[in-house]
Amino acid sequence: MCPSRLILEHVTSRWGVLVLAALLDRSYRFSELRRFIGGVSEKMLAQTLQTLERDGFVHRDAKPVIPPRVDYTLTPLGREAAEQVWALARWTERHVDDVRRARDAYDEARVS
Amino acid sequence: MCPSRLILEHVTSRWGVLVLAALLDRSYRFSELRRFIGGVSEKMLAQTLQTLERDGFVHRDAKPVIPPRVDYTLTPLGREAAEQVWALARWTERHVDDVRRARDAYDEARVS
Repeated sequence: MCPSRLILEHVTSRWGVLVLAALLDRSYRFSELRRFIGGVSEKMLAQTLQTLERDGFVHRDAKPVIPPRVDYTLTPLGREAAEQVWALARWTERHVDDVRRARDAYDEARVS
Repeated sequence: MCPSRLILEHVTSRWGVLVLAALLDRSYRFSELRRFIGGVSEKMLAQTLQTLERDGFVHRDAKPVIPPRVDYTLTPLGREAAEQVWALARWTERHVDDVRRARDAYDEARVS
């Protein structure tokens, strides 16, 4: 598999899209982010964040305070990725009805 | 799963991206498209095209000629989708080295 393919999969993964979109707005702590996204298990969110951190898109900022505090933010590279992905995600959201109509027409033509 | 999620998966699927990118340029016949993309089985390409056709992104133009001739083209909706997806794909290609460096740094920090 070509390397850019794998990057594309990370940023367009189910939770990857939502994490990038959330962090476009502001930084989040883990539990906050999990609440904000909704429906994601701790394990999946941790894995998504780790993948995005390893790719250089997300920065994990562990503050040396008590109690420990970890903030997740976008890196400059991550911000660029997030903007692209989010543009695409918004585009699909705006066109859900068009796609639904196309599917209905397609299915109807196959039935009759 | 929300409906826009499924659309996003179709247009960012491994072969979906490549089909949309190819058709941005011009229309293709099935066998031509398969050669152009490379590495895709007949079955997978047929399935990818069918999914994109059903979503309203690809138009299957069966010409009433002998021998039969079928051309695949983008619909106006498909062209919009393809432009967005392709912008993202090109972005990831341009940043493969940045991501590679980030991964090396991440892995190194974990080993030492």
